[in-house]
Amino acid sequence: MIRVAVDALGGDRAPEEIVSGASDAATDAIRPILYGPPGIDARGLEHVETSDVIEMDDPAVESVRAKPDSSLVRAVRSVAAGEADAVVSAGSTGAMLAASLLHIRRLPGVRRPAIAVAIPARRGPTVLIDAGANADARPEDLLQFAHMGVVFAEEILEIEEPQVRLLSIGEEDEKGNQLTLDAAALLRTSTLRFAGNTESRSLLEGDSDVIVTDGFTGNIALKALEGTIRSLLDALREELETSLRGKLAGLLMRPAARQVRRRLDPETYGGAYLLGLRGLVVIAHGSSSRVAIANAIRLAARGVEHEVVERLESGVLASARSTTPTAER
Amino acid sequence: MIRVAVDALGGDRAPEEIVSGASDAATDAIRPILYGPPGIDARGLEHVETSDVIEMDDPAVESVRAKPDSSLVRAVRSVAAGEADAVVSAGSTGAMLAASLLHIRRLPGVRRPAIAVAIPARRGPTVLIDAGANADARPEDLLQFAHMGVVFAEEILEIEEPQVRLLSIGEEDEKGNQLTLDAAALLRTSTLRFAGNTESRSLLEGDSDVIVTDGFTGNIALKALEGTIRSLLDALREELETSLRGKLAGLLMRPAARQVRRRLDPETYGGAYLLGLRGLVVIAHGSSSRVAIANAIRLAARGVEHEVVERLESGVLASARSTTPTAER
Repeated sequence: MIRVAVDALGGDRAPEEIVSGASDAATDAIRPILYGPPGIDARGLEHVETSDVIEMDDPAVESVRAKPDSSLVRAVRSVAAGEADAVVSAGSTGAMLAASLLHIRRLPGVRRPAIAVAIPARRGPTVLIDAGANADARPEDLLQFAHMGVVFAEEILEIEEPQVRLLSIGEEDEKGNQLTLDAAALLRTSTLRFAGNTESRSLLEGDSDVIVTDGFTGNIALKALEGTIRSLLDALREELETSLRGKLAGLLMRPAARQVRRRLDPETYGGAYLLGLRGLVVIAHGSSSRVAIANAIRLAARGVEHEVVERLESGVLASARSTTPTAER
Repeated sequence: MIRVAVDALGGDRAPEEIVSGASDAATDAIRPILYGPPGIDARGLEHVETSDVIEMDDPAVESVRAKPDSSLVRAVRSVAAGEADAVVSAGSTGAMLAASLLHIRRLPGVRRPAIAVAIPARRGPTVLIDAGANADARPEDLLQFAHMGVVFAEEILEIEEPQVRLLSIGEEDEKGNQLTLDAAALLRTSTLRFAGNTESRSLLEGDSDVIVTDGFTGNIALKALEGTIRSLLDALREELETSLRGKLAGLLMRPAARQVRRRLDPETYGGAYLLGLRGLVVIAHGSSSRVAIANAIRLAARGVEHEVVERLESGVLASARSTTPTAER
């Protein structure tokens, strides 16, 4: 029985969609525990009452300290206290990061936790890490992110001997900025299966098992991908509306469009791991629906089941061994 | 009569598609001049014979110096020599940048030329600058890129009083990396109409007139957008193939899909300006078709007609005035 703490007030569609998603995810093996105010309809789930809420535009670090009884902080603390095995929130990513650092804390040897998301690419899933936790990162951080991404790929996506690529602006070794050039040098001498650079144009194709990048670049790439899927399908729908032939095509293609979107859009299918902590943390999209929340909870449970945190601990140690002393500056 | 030098050997589909595109673009007002080896069929266009070629994987700076009689370098030099008013190449971006810096040279006061591309967003075009010339840039560079982007928006896209936004990982002022935070501070105190951050998820929506970013981030965002359009349409086509209903929908929607792709995909509709030089340079996509090359030549001619270089000279001077002395470090 895996206990997953769920922040009932996180996300644009809280609490209704959150509670519904938690209810959907509940099984004999998964027990969601809701953290939220009295008064919400917990639909028979365990409910820990909290008295405060962190809003999306609250300053992250300050609000985590100022609101210890918020649903988000209480849910995170439950993992630190051993009352839950993992935590899921669709609330502020910054607040989740701050609360996790403060209460769950980093694994020994980890410099910075990173957000790892599985991109459901056409030829199979790709782990993108860091998708947004660290706006500025050093080459050594990217090396560590790569090790964490490999553990995700092996344990959760069941990819054998995952290859690592570096997100850059050309496949050739000399293409990139100072950060990627320095990170590539570290990756080449590491114990990882490093296969060179990859470009953002092939993100949805699935040429790579693990794509490593800093959190700024990863977030830009991921949001460009999500936004383009939405804009393109909207534009296509609009264009089809302009003719009778198009209207008919639109009706006929609806199931296929829905299927493609469900398959390819990272936004629609769940959450991302915040890796490098002493507990399992899943961050769901702010716009998460009931289905996305249920999937995020299942992702969290899967991480516990596969002992991702324990595997990371050894993975990160391997990373620490493979870095040179100068990397510790 | 505007003379446009065209590198007949640049791009994956050279020389056939290049020559065809040049031929299509030729009018009473636009005279393309082909730079390429003897033996190509110039289709009645003026043809300057060259004896060498720069390949896509040649080292950029070295090959420009080592191959002064390559089609790319000769075409660029023709602008410096006053034999052409603008140059178009679908060859190596790095080589075009190197050749332009060497032969056409920067405008006074310009630190770094930048690639400006018009993204055909749903609500109207957006200028993205820098789309890939400078993998590493400083805050002061971004300020200058913004001024150049505004000139593009005003002169070529005919946007009145264009607003500038900074590409970042959240709309709130505090979201970003060190570069964007510092650049935002400069933009706020500048003479520009700065409207804060924008996210990559809205690139195709068209919320901004000018989006400024460093060349690494801009290139990542642009390629993610282009790649997602291609992957999504391919996936949709595949999905439609799986059922009879889908096959019919696919047939019926073909014109609409083509129209949407033509409208939204930057790759299909021409070139990008390399701005900040003493002459007009247009870089076309490596995969440019005949149509894209013709559009790139028209874009070059339009830049000459609207005196973009002359306007940039005054725009950049305005930028220099609005930066603080510390920006000159």
